[in-house]
Amino acid sequence: MESPVTHWNDDDFDLNGDTLHEECGVFGILGHGDASTLTALGLHALQHRGQEAAGIVSFDGRQFHQEKHMGLVGDHYTDPAVLAKLPGNIAIGHTRYSTTGEVALRNVQPLFAELEVGGIAIAHNGNFTNGLTLRRQIIATGAICQSTSDSEVVLHLIARSRHSSSTDRFIDAIRQMEGGYAMLAMTRTKLIAARDPVGIRPLVMGELDGKPIFCSETCALDIVGAKYVRDVENGEVIICEMQPDGSISIEERKPARPVPERPCLFEYVYFARPDSMVSGRSVYTARKNMGINLAKESPVDADVVVPVPDGGTPAAIGFAQQSGIPFELGIIRNHYVGRTFIEPTQQIRAFGVRLKHSANRAEIAGKRVVLVDDSIVRGTTSVKIIQMIRDAGATEVHIRVASPMIFHSDYYGIDTPDPDKLLANQYGDLDAMCRYIGADSLAFLSIDGLYQAVGGEKRNPKAPQFTDHYFTGDYPTQLTDLHGRTMSDPKQISLLKEAG
Amino acid sequence: MESPVTHWNDDDFDLNGDTLHEECGVFGILGHGDASTLTALGLHALQHRGQEAAGIVSFDGRQFHQEKHMGLVGDHYTDPAVLAKLPGNIAIGHTRYSTTGEVALRNVQPLFAELEVGGIAIAHNGNFTNGLTLRRQIIATGAICQSTSDSEVVLHLIARSRHSSSTDRFIDAIRQMEGGYAMLAMTRTKLIAARDPVGIRPLVMGELDGKPIFCSETCALDIVGAKYVRDVENGEVIICEMQPDGSISIEERKPARPVPERPCLFEYVYFARPDSMVSGRSVYTARKNMGINLAKESPVDADVVVPVPDGGTPAAIGFAQQSGIPFELGIIRNHYVGRTFIEPTQQIRAFGVRLKHSANRAEIAGKRVVLVDDSIVRGTTSVKIIQMIRDAGATEVHIRVASPMIFHSDYYGIDTPDPDKLLANQYGDLDAMCRYIGADSLAFLSIDGLYQAVGGEKRNPKAPQFTDHYFTGDYPTQLTDLHGRTMSDPKQISLLKEAG
Amino acid sequence: MESPVTHWNDDDFDLNGDTLHEECGVFGILGHGDASTLTALGLHALQHRGQEAAGIVSFDGRQFHQEKHMGLVGDHYTDPAVLAKLPGNIAIGHTRYSTTGEVALRNVQPLFAELEVGGIAIAHNGNFTNGLTLRRQIIATGAICQSTSDSEVVLHLIARSRHSSSTDRFIDAIRQMEGGYAMLAMTRTKLIAARDPVGIRPLVMGELDGKPIFCSETCALDIVGAKYVRDVENGEVIICEMQPDGSISIEERKPARPVPERPCLFEYVYFARPDSMVSGRSVYTARKNMGINLAKESPVDADVVVPVPDGGTPAAIGFAQQSGIPFELGIIRNHYVGRTFIEPTQQIRAFGVRLKHSANRAEIAGKRVVLVDDSIVRGTTSVKIIQMIRDAGATEVHIRVASPMIFHSDYYGIDTPDPDKLLANQYGDLDAMCRYIGADSLAFLSIDGLYQAVGGEKRNPKAPQFTDHYFTGDYPTQLTDLHGRTMSDPKQISLLKEAG
Amino acid sequence: MESPVTHWNDDDFDLNGDTLHEECGVFGILGHGDASTLTALGLHALQHRGQEAAGIVSFDGRQFHQEKHMGLVGDHYTDPAVLAKLPGNIAIGHTRYSTTGEVALRNVQPLFAELEVGGIAIAHNGNFTNGLTLRRQIIATGAICQSTSDSEVVLHLIARSRHSSSTDRFIDAIRQMEGGYAMLAMTRTKLIAARDPVGIRPLVMGELDGKPIFCSETCALDIVGAKYVRDVENGEVIICEMQPDGSISIEERKPARPVPERPCLFEYVYFARPDSMVSGRSVYTARKNMGINLAKESPVDADVVVPVPDGGTPAAIGFAQQSGIPFELGIIRNHYVGRTFIEPTQQIRAFGVRLKHSANRAEIAGKRVVLVDDSIVRGTTSVKIIQMIRDAGATEVHIRVASPMIFHSDYYGIDTPDPDKLLANQYGDLDAMCRYIGADSLAFLSIDGLYQAVGGEKRNPKAPQFTDHYFTGDYPTQLTDLHGRTMSDPKQISLLKEAG
Repeated sequence: MESPVTHWNDDDFDLNGDTLHEECGVFGILGHGDASTLTALGLHALQHRGQEAAGIVSFDGRQFHQEKHMGLVGDHYTDPAVLAKLPGNIAIGHTRYSTTGEVALRNVQPLFAELEVGGIAIAHNGNFTNGLTLRRQIIATGAICQSTSDSEVVLHLIARSRHSSSTDRFIDAIRQMEGGYAMLAMTRTKLIAARDPVGIRPLVMGELDGKPIFCSETCALDIVGAKYVRDVENGEVIICEMQPDGSISIEERKPARPVPERPCLFEYVYFARPDSMVSGRSVYTARKNMGINLAKESPVDADVVVPVPDGGTPAAIGFAQQSGIPFELGIIRNHYVGRTFIEPTQQIRAFGVRLKHSANRAEIAGKRVVLVDDSIVRGTTSVKIIQMIRDAGATEVHIRVASPMIFHSDYYGIDTPDPDKLLANQYGDLDAMCRYIGADSLAFLSIDGLYQAVGGEKRNPKAPQFTDHYFTGDYPTQLTDLHGRTMSDPKQISLLKEAG
Repeated sequence: MESPVTHWNDDDFDLNGDTLHEECGVFGILGHGDASTLTALGLHALQHRGQEAAGIVSFDGRQFHQEKHMGLVGDHYTDPAVLAKLPGNIAIGHTRYSTTGEVALRNVQPLFAELEVGGIAIAHNGNFTNGLTLRRQIIATGAICQSTSDSEVVLHLIARSRHSSSTDRFIDAIRQMEGGYAMLAMTRTKLIAARDPVGIRPLVMGELDGKPIFCSETCALDIVGAKYVRDVENGEVIICEMQPDGSISIEERKPARPVPERPCLFEYVYFARPDSMVSGRSVYTARKNMGINLAKESPVDADVVVPVPDGGTPAAIGFAQQSGIPFELGIIRNHYVGRTFIEPTQQIRAFGVRLKHSANRAEIAGKRVVLVDDSIVRGTTSVKIIQMIRDAGATEVHIRVASPMIFHSDYYGIDTPDPDKLLANQYGDLDAMCRYIGADSLAFLSIDGLYQAVGGEKRNPKAPQFTDHYFTGDYPTQLTDLHGRTMSDPKQISLLKEAG
Repeated sequence: MESPVTHWNDDDFDLNGDTLHEECGVFGILGHGDASTLTALGLHALQHRGQEAAGIVSFDGRQFHQEKHMGLVGDHYTDPAVLAKLPGNIAIGHTRYSTTGEVALRNVQPLFAELEVGGIAIAHNGNFTNGLTLRRQIIATGAICQSTSDSEVVLHLIARSRHSSSTDRFIDAIRQMEGGYAMLAMTRTKLIAARDPVGIRPLVMGELDGKPIFCSETCALDIVGAKYVRDVENGEVIICEMQPDGSISIEERKPARPVPERPCLFEYVYFARPDSMVSGRSVYTARKNMGINLAKESPVDADVVVPVPDGGTPAAIGFAQQSGIPFELGIIRNHYVGRTFIEPTQQIRAFGVRLKHSANRAEIAGKRVVLVDDSIVRGTTSVKIIQMIRDAGATEVHIRVASPMIFHSDYYGIDTPDPDKLLANQYGDLDAMCRYIGADSLAFLSIDGLYQAVGGEKRNPKAPQFTDHYFTGDYPTQLTDLHGRTMSDPKQISLLKEAG
Repeated sequence: MESPVTHWNDDDFDLNGDTLHEECGVFGILGHGDASTLTALGLHALQHRGQEAAGIVSFDGRQFHQEKHMGLVGDHYTDPAVLAKLPGNIAIGHTRYSTTGEVALRNVQPLFAELEVGGIAIAHNGNFTNGLTLRRQIIATGAICQSTSDSEVVLHLIARSRHSSSTDRFIDAIRQMEGGYAMLAMTRTKLIAARDPVGIRPLVMGELDGKPIFCSETCALDIVGAKYVRDVENGEVIICEMQPDGSISIEERKPARPVPERPCLFEYVYFARPDSMVSGRSVYTARKNMGINLAKESPVDADVVVPVPDGGTPAAIGFAQQSGIPFELGIIRNHYVGRTFIEPTQQIRAFGVRLKHSANRAEIAGKRVVLVDDSIVRGTTSVKIIQMIRDAGATEVHIRVASPMIFHSDYYGIDTPDPDKLLANQYGDLDAMCRYIGADSLAFLSIDGLYQAVGGEKRNPKAPQFTDHYFTGDYPTQLTDLHGRTMSDPKQISLLKEAG
C-alpha cells in the first residue's frame, strides 16, 4: 500500500547490520497557528533518529487530523497538500525506526484513540520493559489491540483509567509503565510531555512566540528558531493547556518516586546530532573530548588522523588536536547512497562499503593512518574499511574507538544485535579483535574516559551518573518482560501479519 | 497512502449521484489449499457489490495474514506476490462500497482482533441500525475504536463477551445487533456465517471439493466451479469447524426468535448479478418478468424497445417479448468509462452522459422509442438520456420503469440520497415527473407487479413477503440509532479524520 | 518508466490471443479554443480502436505541445493538469494498439518533426506495405530513425522533400507510401487529412461551431456534438488552413490515380463501434443484417438465441428476429475484467473465460442454444464458451458465426495471428472445426451474405466492392515489403530494444 | 510519465540558484561480462556530476539495449530487473544535470542511432559552442531532430558522413564540433573516447581484468576496483575494438591540430570529487593548497576555522593547518535534505538554509569565526549562513573564499547564472560585497594563488595553463553560436514542448 522508501542514508545502507539504531524522535507544539508545519520541520531536524516512517496528528478545534507515511519527513510532509490536511494549532509528530512491532503503517505513531472524554493522541521514543506483560493482561480483559506497538498499551491504560481528567488518566497509565521513554500526548486542549523516572531518553522544552514546544533534541528547536527553555526532568510530567482566554497554563508534576537522572551514554556517543545539547551538554564537545581522552589513553605514532565518516569526525578532530597529528579527510563519503541500492549480484555485494565510502588515496598512500570511529558493534564494516585503506596504500592502520567495548543488549529503545554477534563477545581479547579486523593496533576508550568526556567526572560505581548497561551490564530499571518470560517469541507480538 | 483508483464503472461515474449503491460482498472458504485464490476469484465475481476497496484475511495454521487495498479486486489480488502473502486454507474476503465510515484503509474489512482465546476476523454486508448506540456504550467503558466501521462494534462485543468459546462469543455479539446483515467470521479453525433475523441481505452456502463456502451471491460459486448447497436462512448461524482429523463439522444454530424471511427487493431490481440466484429465484428471470408485467400494466404504441444499459436490459427483453415491439440496442455503452474521467471544464461536464452512453442513431431516428430502465432515483440521468435520444431523431420517447417509485431511505446497507432529492418526492404526480424528465409518457411498475415478477404472488399487506420500505415505508426492523437521536451528526462518526 | 496499464478490457484480457486487433484511432480539429479537450473526448470515443497508449499534439500560436501516455485516454487526458499542457486551437490525437514497433513511448503517435519550414505532427491508422523498404533507403542516406513506427518514414520523406510548402511536401511523401491508411497532419496553421487510394481504413469529416474535424469514426463526432459532413474519399487529401483573417480555407486534392473505393469489411464485422456510420452505412444495421442473412442461410431448430457478448449481440438480435427464436442474455459479461488480472497459478488459468463471462444458468439449463458470434479467429475461446454453456445445462449448442472463415493475414493495420494458427487453416472442413470446438452444429455466413448485409449486393468478383483478403486472399494493393523480402525478421525493425 | 525525483542533495536544494552546476558524467567499458553493472556503479560514483537523469546503453552481440530514467542512479540501475534488460559486454552510461535542452526523457543520454553501417550510441559531458549553428544547418537539409540535446547534432553528422567506417565517421563529426567535451561512443564492437582539443572537460582511461574503461573521474575507477591507466589527452581519440579472437585492439588518433592542454579550474575548485585525480593532480590536495594559500594571502585573527560544508572542508583544513587556528565543525549538514522539500508557505521559505545546515552553537558562541567556502556565485546563501552563525553567538565572522571572484559565463558545460546576477558583478568592490553578505571581512583567493595551489606555478598570461574564463574572461575556444547570433532565444531550442 506504500511505495518503497527510496532514500539512502548512512544507517540504512548497512550491509551487515553493523550499526545500532535509535528508534524515534518526537515533536509537539501547542497554540501556534503553524503547528503542523513547525512539527514537520522539527521532525525533519530529528530525521537521524528514525527514517522508516513519520506521522503527525493535529486538532483544529473541532476534529483531529492524522497523516502517516512510510519514508522520510521530506518525502511527504512538505507537500502543501499534505500539510493542508493537518489544520489546527496543536500538533504532535513522530519519526520512527522500528524496534518492536513490524513496520506496518498501523504501527506508525502518533496513535490516536477516542475516549469518552474526547480524543487523545500519543507518541513516544523509547521502549517499555513491561509492555508485553501489560498487553497480555489487557487483552485478557476484552481490549482489542490494533497495532503491535507497545505505545498502544499506554492508550488502553488511559482509556480504561477510572479517572475523569485526561491528565490523571495519562499519569495513571504511565505509572504502570516501566522502561525508558520520552512521551508526548495531546488532547483537544492539552499538550503533555513525560520522561521516564531515570531519564534514559532525552526530551527538551522550548518556546516559540510564547508557545510551548517539546522535542527529543535541541536541534529541532534550532530549525524553527525556537528558544531552549529547559530539559524535561527525569520522572517529570509537564501539562500545557490552552485556556479559554487563549493563554496557556503549564503544570509540572512528578508522579514517580524521585531518583537521580541517568541519561543514556549512547546519545552522546552516536545517536544525537552533534549540534544538539543533551541534558545540558554539547554533543559535539563531548565527542571531541572522547577523541582527546582517547589520544591520551592510547597514543600512536602516525602521519595522519582520519575519521570514519560521519560519526567519527568530532572525535578525530579531538584526537588530532591532542596528538598534534594532522587531521585529513582520508575517507570520502558518497552522499547518494540510499536504501534502494539493491545489490543485484554477488559481485556487487562485494562493493558494499565502496558504495558508501571511498579512500582518498592522495592522503593515504605511503602513510601511517589512525582511523577514529565512534563505536564498534559487530566489526564487519571495520574489516572492510581497513582493507580499503590498505588497498589505497597505507603503510600502517591503527584503529581508535571513541567508546568502550559493547557486551550487552539494550531494552530501552536501541536496536542491538544478538549479544553473541557483538565483536566484544566473539573475541576474548583485544589482540584477537585486532587480528580479526586486520588493524595494526586497536584501542577503545575506557568507561572512565567516556564518563569524563561527557560529564567531567569518572564513573561512580555506586551511583553511576549515566545509563551504560551496553558497556557494563548495569541496567537502570527492572526488566519484567525479559525475566517474566513473557517474551517467549518476542518477534511475534501479533498473530496478524500485514504488509507495510 | 494509496494511488487513486483508476477504473471506470457504471456506478462510479455517476455525475449526479443518480444511482443507488450496494455496500458489500463477502466470500469465505474453509479447508481448501487455495483458500485465498478462491476468495479473490469469488470477490471478483462480487465486484458489482462494491468497487472501492477489498480485503482478505487468511490463517496458515500458525499466523493470520491480512491484505487490504483500495481499488478493484483485479488490481491487487491477482498479483501472485499479494496472494503469496495470504497462505493457509481458511480465508474470508470482503469487497466494499462504503455506506458508513470514511473510505480510509483502516475501515476496509475484514476486521481482525486478537482475543485472549485467539484471533478472529469478521466481514459483513449490510448495516446495523443500532451500531452507533452500541459504539458509544462500549467507548464509555474503556474500549478504543480504531475504525469508523460499525463492524468494529461487533468485534468489541466478541472481545468483551464472558463466554469462553468463540462461537458463543460471536452469537452473544450478534444477538445485540439490530439491522440487516450477512456476516462471516473466521478463527483459527472455524468459518462462521450469519444472516440477520429478517434475511434482508443475501448469503448462500456452497461446496467445492467437499469444503464449505459462504458468499453473497451464487455467481461467486459459479466462478470457482463450486456447487450451490442452500441459502443461509434468516436468523441462522452456521459454524463450520476444522476437526483434528481433517474433517469439517457443520453446526446450525438459530439464536434469534424465528420470523418469516423478507429478502430485499432491490437485490432483484438492481444489485444482484443477473446470473445469480437470490433466495432460490433467478435474478434475470425476475427482471424479465418485471418487463413483462410492465408491458401488461402500461402498454405503449411504439416502433422499438430500447434498454437503458446495462440495468434495464433484461426488463427490456421481457417488455419486447410481451409487447411484440422489436428489441434494439438503441443506446451504446462505452466500456472505457471509469472513475478517473475527471471533468476539467464546465464544457466537458455537459458531456457527462455521452462519455458513458451514445445513441445508436440508425435505430432511433424517425422512430417511436420505449426506453426501459430498472429504476429512477433522482431522475437527473433520465433527463440527459431522453435528450440524447431526441437529439438522435426519435419522434417519441416513452419511459417504462421496471420498479415502483422510490420514496424512503434505506438503513440496511443501501446508500440512498436524502429523501427530498428523490424524484418521487420532488414532484407530486406522474405527470409532473414526466414533464421534468422530458418524456412523452412515463410509467412505473406497480408494487404488486413487482412482487408477482419476483415471487409469483401479490404483496400480502399483513405479512409482506419482501423488504420493500424504499417503496412503501414499511421498515422490517427497529431503527434505534435513528429514533434514539444518537445520530446527531451521522456523518461524523469519528473525531479523527484521515486520508484514504 | 511507466506504470503498467491497469485496465481490463475485452480485447486485452485475451488469454489465447483469440481476437483480431485494430491498431489505431485518430482525431484532429482546427480553429477551436478547446482543441485539446475535444481531441481527448474524441479519442475516448475511439478507445475501442486501441487501448495501449494515446498522444495529443497541439499548437498555441508560438509553440507545439505534446503529451504521450501509455494507457487509456481517460487515465491521463481528463486530468486538467495534462490538458493545461496542451494549449492552442489546433490539435491532433491518436490512440493506439501496436501492430508494428514495440510498445515504447517513443513509438506513440502523433510523431513530431521540426522542419526548416516549421514544425509538423502526423498521426495515422493503418499500415504501409512498403514501410520497411523505404525505411532502409532513407537510413542508407543518413537519416536517423528514432522510433520503430512506420509513420516516422513519412516524417522523413516530408523533411527531405524538395518542395517548399508543407502541403506539397506532405503529398510528396504519401505518394511514395503504399498500403492502407487514414492519416492526419498538422502544422502551425494547417490540419491535413488523407486516406489511402483504395480507402481501406475509414476517415470522416465533421464540423463543430464551423470548425473542421477529422476522425476515424462518426462516434467521435457524436460525443462532442459535432455534425457529420462527409467521408474523406479514397485517395483524397483535404487541407484545412487557418487564414490570417481567422477564416478557414479548405482545399481538396486527389494526388493518386482514381480507383474504386474498397473499405475494409472487418470494420463492419468487428472493429467499428455499432453506433458509427462507416462509408455511409450503419455498423449496427450491417451487423443485424449479418444475423438475418445467417438465419436465412443456416437456420437451426432451437429454444433460445444467445449472443457471445458484446461483439455478437447485434447479429444475435437479427438472428432472433429472422428466426423467431427468443433472444436472451444467456452469457453475462463481467465489466471488471482488465489487464491486471494476472493469473497467479495454473489453477486460475483454467478460470480464464469465467473471469470475463459467466453462463446465465436460468436461461440455459435444459434448452437448445444458438450461440451467435461475430467471427472465429483461432477458436480457442469458442471451445471454452461452449463448454461453459454445456456445464450450465444446455441440451444442444449450435454456433452461428456472422462472418466467413478467415484464412489470410492482413497487412493494412489489423493484427492477425500466423495463418497456420487460424482455425480455418488448422482444420480441413466444417465438420472437423465443429468437432474441435465441441458444438452440435457450426455455420459461417457466406461471403455473399456478408456483402449483401453490408452493401446490399453480392460480391462482384471482377471488382469487389470491399477489402476482403482475410476471407478471400484478394489483396487490394501491392505488398512490397513482403515480396521484396525486406522483412527477413519483421519483428526486429530496430537494433535497439527499449522498455515501454 | 515519470514519478518525480524524490531525493535531496546539496546542489538541488538550492533555494536561490546560488551554486554552479556541472552537467554530466560518463562511463564506458568494453569486453566485460558485467558491463552494465560496472557502468551503473561507475555512474553512481559520478553522481555528483549530475542528478537529474541517467541512461545506459549496452550491446549483447545481437541487439542494443537502452534504459533511461529520471532520478538518481541508485533509484533504478541497481534493480536487478533493470540491469537484466541491459545484457552484453559493451556498455556506456551517462548521468546528467541539464544545461541545454529541457529535462525530458528524450534528452537523456546516451543517444542512439541506427546507421546503415549499424547502431551507434554516444554520450558526452560538456557543451558545443557551435551546436545550434550546426543544428540549423542539418535541419535545413532534411534531418529530423528528436531531442533538444546538442549531442544529437553529433549523431546526425555521423549518420551523414560519407566515410564507411564508424571510426572515420565519428572523427569526421567531432572535427566539426567546437567547445569543451569528453565524449564516449559505442558500436557493436567498439568503444571510442574523445576529449576536446583544449582538454577542458576531464576524461580518464582505466583497466579492469584487462578490459578498457573510460570515465569522467578516477573515483569511478576506484569504485569498481579498476586500475588508472592514464588521462585521455586533449584532442585525442582512442578507439578500442573487440577483435574476432576476443582480444581488444587499441588505436590512438589525434585528428585536431595539437594545442596545449587547459583543463577547467572549476573541476578542482568545486566539481570533481575530492578523492579523484584530475589531469594527474589530487583534487583534495589542490583544495587543501587553496586553503593554505588563502591563509597566507589573507590571514585573520580568529578563534576557530569553520568550513561551509561540504565544499569548503578541504580548504578549511588547509587554512587551519597554515594558520594554526583550530578547525571545528561549526556548521552541521542535514543529510536528509532533498529535492522534495517543497516549501509550502512563505514562512518555511525562510527556513531554507536551516533545512540544510545548522549552527553548532557550542563551537560558535562567543568566538571569532573564519568561514571557509569554495566559491561565491550570487552570494545569497552566504548572507543566510553568516546570519545563522551570528545568531549562534559568533562575535566576528570572517569569510575566506578558496577561489577568485566570478565575473563571466561558461559555455563549456557549466550552468552559470546571468552574469549580472553574479555577486562580483553586482557590487563594485570587495567592501560593498562584504557589507552585502554581512561579514566582518571578506577575501578571495588570487588567480595566481589558485594556479599555484592546483599546478604549482603562477598563471602564465601568454599561455594560461588552465581554463579560467569565469574569473578572467579568457575563453579558450571560439564561441560561434554566441557571436553568430544564432542564439536569438537560446532557451527555445525546439518548437516542441514536452513534459519531462
